[in-house]
This record gives sequence, C-alpha cells and structure tokens, in this order.
Amino acid sequence: MSGSFIRAAAEDARPLLEVHTFATPNSVKVSIALEELGLPYALHGINVRKGEQKTADFLALNPNGKVPVLVDRTLEDSPLVLTESAAILVYLAEKTGQLLPAGGDARARVFEQLFFHASGLSPAFGQSGFFQRFAAEPQPLAIERFSSEEKRTLGVLDGVLASRPFVAGDAFTIADIAHFGWLWRRAFAGVSLDDTPSVARWYEAIAARPAVQRGIARVEALVPQD
Amino acid sequence: MSGSFIRAAAEDARPLLEVHTFATPNSVKVSIALEELGLPYALHGINVRKGEQKTADFLALNPNGKVPVLVDRTLEDSPLVLTESAAILVYLAEKTGQLLPAGGDARARVFEQLFFHASGLSPAFGQSGFFQRFAAEPQPLAIERFSSEEKRTLGVLDGVLASRPFVAGDAFTIADIAHFGWLWRRAFAGVSLDDTPSVARWYEAIAARPAVQRGIARVEALVPQD
Repeated sequence: MSGSFIRAAAEDARPLLEVHTFATPNSVKVSIALEELGLPYALHGINVRKGEQKTADFLALNPNGKVPVLVDRTLEDSPLVLTESAAILVYLAEKTGQLLPAGGDARARVFEQLFFHASGLSPAFGQSGFFQRFAAEPQPLAIERFSSEEKRTLGVLDGVLASRPFVAGDAFTIADIAHFGWLWRRAFAGVSLDDTPSVARWYEAIAARPAVQRGIARVEALVPQD
Repeated sequence: MSGSFIRAAAEDARPLLEVHTFATPNSVKVSIALEELGLPYALHGINVRKGEQKTADFLALNPNGKVPVLVDRTLEDSPLVLTESAAILVYLAEKTGQLLPAGGDARARVFEQLFFHASGLSPAFGQSGFFQRFAAEPQPLAIERFSSEEKRTLGVLDGVLASRPFVAGDAFTIADIAHFGWLWRRAFAGVSLDDTPSVARWYEAIAARPAVQRGIARVEALVPQD
C-alpha cells in the first residue's frame, strides 16, 4: 500500500462535521445548534485554560486564535473551515433550512439579535468578567464601565423578551442559541437575572430543552476532571 | 378633511427608505451600502455629540440607544424598523440580491468577516479610543489591553487581505463595507495602517469607490458646521 492510500483512508475516517471547541460561552452555541438540528458531529477539545488556542496548529486553523472552529467535510469541494460562532450558526441554519426564517421581518429580527449579541451583550459580559477577575491591577473606571454596560444590554434584552417568547419573535431560532452562550456563563461576568424577569423566564425555557442540555454536556465533557 | 386623511397624506410624504444616522463608524456603513446598491433614501440626522440617541423619541425607535436605524416603508405590511448596522447590511443585500453571495464558501466568508468585525475589531477600536480619549482618569491596563487588541485584530485582517483582494474573497461585499466603517474612523482609535500593508492597499481601493465617497459625504453633511 502506498503512503498516499494510507493517508486517504485516514482522512476518510475523520468526522464529517467536526468542531474544535471547549466549554466556553461561544463554543457551547455550536454544539447546541448541532443537537437542535439533529446533525451528527464530533468535538475536538482545545483547552483554552492551557492556552491551546494559541498553538501554531490551532492558529493555522484560525489565525484569530479563538474557539469554536467548524470543519465541514460533507462538501464536494475541499473542506470548509469556518470561524466565528455566529457565522457558524448562520451556516448550519442555512445548510439545513432550520432555525432561521427564510425571509421578511422574522428573518431580519434574527440578524438584529445576532449582531446585538456579537457587538453589544457579548463584549460587555466578556470585558466585565475580565476586569473583575483577571486584570493585574484594579481598573475601577473600567470595571464600572463594563459592569454598567452588561446591566444595560441585559436590560435591553429584557425589554425585547417582555413582548416576545423568543429573542427574535414567536419561534426558537439561532438568535436564542447565540444569546444563551453568555447567559449560561453569566456567573463569570458577575451577572444575575434577578432584575430581568423576562430574561429569567426565557433562560429557564431554553435551558430546559433536551437538545440544549445535550449540547452543554458535550462541551463540558471536554474539561479535564482534576 | 378629516384628521386621519391629513395624517395619511403626511405619512405618504415620508421617504420610503429612511436612515436615522450620523457621521459615525457604524452609521456610514448604511449610506455606503445604499449608494452601492443604487437605492434612493433619505437620512434623518441624530446628533450623537449632543446625545440625541438617548432621547425618548429615539429610544422608542431603538431601545439600545444607538445609530443607525433603518425604516423601510416599501413593504406591504407595516414599516420595518431595523437596528444594528450589520443586520441592516444583510437585510439590504438580501432585499436586492447584491453584495452577498447566494451560497457556498463565498457566503460563509462574508458572515465570518461580518461577525469578526462586530465582535472583534469594532469593540477593540471603540474601547481603545474611549480609554485613550474619554476616561475620566487614566486606566493604564485598560489602555494597554485595548490598544494591543486593536493592533492584533488589525493584524488578523491584514493576514486575511494578504491572500484576497476583498475581505471575504474575490468580490466586493457587505463585509468590506462593515470593516470600512471603523477603518475610516481609525484616527479616533489611534491606529495607523503603516504596519498592515494589505489593509492599507484594500483601504485605498475601497475609499476610491465613487459610491463609498457619496455615502461618506451624505453622513458628513449631517454634522453641524460651527
């Protein structure tokens, strides 16, 4: 047998949908989406607590040095390597025709919430957690700035959910999955849902979905128990 | 004539596509897209330097208190009021079938760059500018954090543009418009393009497009000259 044959056989054995991922607010979105969509997939753990997202191997996959990364080997052409959790959600939704309305107001609302999450709520939660926990010296105005901004953005989301069952309207969509990631990890950001009853109601409903629970369990299983 | 007739006539006189906007990194994206797409539109100035994005009237339009906001009165149903600049770009691209590939790898790359901009480059530029210019007291670790992150994200974009003419591939798309907003306002963030030659080459090409120049001129005309 030639070397190339062995290599081809080894490549065939690789999973068709693979996610390089860990138990992080952005990573959990992808396994939840794959569970909701009923697609078979494999996870490849990247331990961000050990900095594995900054290794040369990983940077070759994503020069931005962040999980998650999706590798789709179901396509006729070469595999698609895709970064950015929300871009992966859009890709999977359009690939399957699920969790993203095909047009109109309902579709626009999903993108509105995806970008509100990506540019507003998510950076506020992430920076607030960083300055509360990891800054080498206290930066009081930075703590105040991001703590205020995370409460403000959560309040905006509470207003949205006061008039709708799901963040983009009457149906569960990828926008709910996007917001869920950071709400699931809200303890890191020092946030509670006590003052945002509509977010609390929505969070309970999302967290109770069996596919969401399976998606969380899959990434939590990547964390070494020591 | 009844009051309702007068009201209806007044409503008919309102522009079909209207953007509540100002000369900001996020706002300019929308007028550039409308110019590139050849759609007629009107702008309604919201002077963010005077805090007009926090008035009750504006918050009724966007509870998140940010420009731009698109009002689309071309639809059969009630007008669509849409926030989040990148969601507006996606909406306009899908409405016209332009500036966003219909499928495959090319489409996935546009969303990847839209979300890399929204969650990575844009918050880094915005926070870096804030802590350099507006913080009431110096926060040295915050300045260092965001100054490093804006250079890092700009370096990632430079790597992307080293192998492609446009940020998402061989064609100009809404992802180029998204990245252009903050690169156009890079002086606020204290960033130059001296160390990122591929970004510099791309910036010159985008800034030279007549529609981009018209889109910039439209929002700059909203700034009071005093």
